[in-house]
Amino acid sequence: MQPYELSATEAAGLIAAGELSCEELARSTLMRIQECESAIRAWSYVNADEVVRNARELDKGIPRGALHGLTLGVKDMIDTFDMPTSHNSPIYYGHRPSKDAASVAIVRQRGAQILGKTETAEFAAGGRFPNTRNGRNPRYSPGASSSGSAAAVGAGMAQLALATQTGGSLIRPAAYNGIHGFKPTHGLVSTEGAKTFAPSLDTIGWYGRSVADLALMASVFRIAVPEERPGIRGLRVGLCRGPNWQHIEAGGEAALLAAARRLEDAGAIVEDLDLPEELERATALHGVLMRGEGRVSFFNEYVQHYPMLHEGMRSLVEGAVSSADLIQAHDGLAQCRRVFDGLFGKDLDVVITPPASGEAPLADAGPPPMTSAMVFCAMWTALHVPCVALPVGDGRDGLPLGVQLIGARGLDGRLLAISHDVAEAVTGDDVRY
Amino acid sequence: MQPYELSATEAAGLIAAGELSCEELARSTLMRIQECESAIRAWSYVNADEVVRNARELDKGIPRGALHGLTLGVKDMIDTFDMPTSHNSPIYYGHRPSKDAASVAIVRQRGAQILGKTETAEFAAGGRFPNTRNGRNPRYSPGASSSGSAAAVGAGMAQLALATQTGGSLIRPAAYNGIHGFKPTHGLVSTEGAKTFAPSLDTIGWYGRSVADLALMASVFRIAVPEERPGIRGLRVGLCRGPNWQHIEAGGEAALLAAARRLEDAGAIVEDLDLPEELERATALHGVLMRGEGRVSFFNEYVQHYPMLHEGMRSLVEGAVSSADLIQAHDGLAQCRRVFDGLFGKDLDVVITPPASGEAPLADAGPPPMTSAMVFCAMWTALHVPCVALPVGDGRDGLPLGVQLIGARGLDGRLLAISHDVAEAVTGDDVRY
Repeated sequence: MQPYELSATEAAGLIAAGELSCEELARSTLMRIQECESAIRAWSYVNADEVVRNARELDKGIPRGALHGLTLGVKDMIDTFDMPTSHNSPIYYGHRPSKDAASVAIVRQRGAQILGKTETAEFAAGGRFPNTRNGRNPRYSPGASSSGSAAAVGAGMAQLALATQTGGSLIRPAAYNGIHGFKPTHGLVSTEGAKTFAPSLDTIGWYGRSVADLALMASVFRIAVPEERPGIRGLRVGLCRGPNWQHIEAGGEAALLAAARRLEDAGAIVEDLDLPEELERATALHGVLMRGEGRVSFFNEYVQHYPMLHEGMRSLVEGAVSSADLIQAHDGLAQCRRVFDGLFGKDLDVVITPPASGEAPLADAGPPPMTSAMVFCAMWTALHVPCVALPVGDGRDGLPLGVQLIGARGLDGRLLAISHDVAEAVTGDDVRY
Repeated sequence: MQPYELSATEAAGLIAAGELSCEELARSTLMRIQECESAIRAWSYVNADEVVRNARELDKGIPRGALHGLTLGVKDMIDTFDMPTSHNSPIYYGHRPSKDAASVAIVRQRGAQILGKTETAEFAAGGRFPNTRNGRNPRYSPGASSSGSAAAVGAGMAQLALATQTGGSLIRPAAYNGIHGFKPTHGLVSTEGAKTFAPSLDTIGWYGRSVADLALMASVFRIAVPEERPGIRGLRVGLCRGPNWQHIEAGGEAALLAAARRLEDAGAIVEDLDLPEELERATALHGVLMRGEGRVSFFNEYVQHYPMLHEGMRSLVEGAVSSADLIQAHDGLAQCRRVFDGLFGKDLDVVITPPASGEAPLADAGPPPMTSAMVFCAMWTALHVPCVALPVGDGRDGLPLGVQLIGARGLDGRLLAISHDVAEAVTGDDVRY
């Protein structure tokens, strides 16, 4: 086993025990990047020279924190002081921010080794899409917009990566690349220094190779995971097909049902969850919020750099979401959030639902239409709830299939604790359908 | 009359007519800064050399937009690519951002002449306060946190200035310095590139010397003011003492009642507005939101630069606002917003309420406790509604007294149109009490 194959948690243990140096881990990971990158194209920038130097410095000093020496990619719309932040936009090509985004500064201070910047859809919103390929099989799409972060972790080119979600940009790529993803409750992680798209929705989260990896990163952002594991026996799981079930594919359905069956086999109480009627409009209201806030967020680039802004982004700025509609969306979603959180309690511990329609599509098919791309995630983003993506097994095309676990707002630590046990129960070799 | 004495709208007219050059305006304003700055200390940085050069470039080119050549100050927690952004924090002393904040880029693109950076409370939040003095009388306080922006406009050292409000940081200083201030509906102006304090509250707005100046800036951010003026006759005005009336001083009360009387004399229908009971908790919920979100926003500086972070900011990060309380504040305020907006319609056009407790206190008294400082503004910030500060006349100490006008969310243009007429009716020489 090569060091790059270790999960973040495993590597952290070996580094702490003096059995692995930060430099060994960094060099092994850089080798892996050299091996895969031409096919996967996950990175917009790799800080190769600095990484080895940084690793040596880390090896010389006292342990910096929970992420000491662990390798991490940063989505290229989150600022880094020592690398360009290009947003996959010609406007910002080679742009050098003067300081780290808050999230980057925090992981760096806790010892993370920032390998480079990972490819993103233009401004994590739309417009240009990168040529990144699926980390498991380069013929397939990695999902957007956190394409590079998910593919890098999926292909073993980073142990951890920062990503963002405004619609379904974090969870769907996790499922496509067969990795673990976590989108915290909205507002728990500062988005300062990341490009704004729709501030009421924009959320920074991360990828890892296990739930333990997700929890390790969470601890750095003061999201504490309870020591005591709830266990699967008696866990009340709501199986939620959701209001957009018509978009599901055979693989996505099979993955959800396989996971539910495995949970039942392990002693969970799985029951169908029919969402209250109010939540049926949540996906539509999410769209209003995204377009209404996006109209404001990219006005700066529109005014300054019109010719270099992609047509898709221009039409967002020119969009005609009325104040009244935007306010109605804010108010409607506020009500939806209360209703959804109210479901948790004595009859419900966790919701299980699809993270995407099925296996990753072929890369040559181009980016999918925005709506179908985020349809299994948008509502949850708008509800501000914590979401975890877990791989379940491989599907018919040999690509990963996953499930998404959802908790109530603010109970992020509890969701991660539950996810730990659920992950052990649901993961299998393949998903038949 | 010197060019620096012109309002933004007046100067824009003269520049467009070729009767005033951008250079003349810039030089006159720089002279005024030289004259006043040692007493007022409104600026953390003045871009003196560049200002004249920029003005000459503006004079050579075609008109850039609505703000062509107008002089503008930028609160020193909003990024500028060509000047330091220090946040009144030793951590960022002399820090040079690599690009303009969205709001700065937009006003610059529309031709504004950015004179320099204006003093702020540390991170526009707390901790260190600047030594800025009231623009009308240096013995008195300018109000915080937008101290420098308000004092600069008040003393004639800038025609316009960008400011921010999370509690009462924009409206209260407007009242203290006898100028006009506008806080738009939350979310209408991108806060990208401004320091984050409490994202659900943080709002960028501006100061000017007339309502027309406020509307001119609004147009640049695509907030359209209807051409047709509503007029005062028949205008339904809700006189709102609000849930924190016990903090009012004699001067503040006299200003509010004088304005109400003048509006009635001009034909308005002024009636006492008792707010619905739900709104009584809005100020308290605002406090929870500010502390709960501030706890996340300054965690980066806390982790990286603990020794240089003011004790007041440290305790914000160490604060123990629970997730449950924070979520309850979000949900409670969402409900308050709907209730408040619902008051507008056939019986109510605009709310008139105090912007501050009274005249500015003496500067030597030091910064007032946070709660009493923002008590007449915090609720409105939390309600996300547009707010306008208008001067009414001078009080017993010879310092300005004002009122605050409030509209429903998203009806910013209508509020500015109403404010235009109200300003003409309420402004007098002095306020007796």
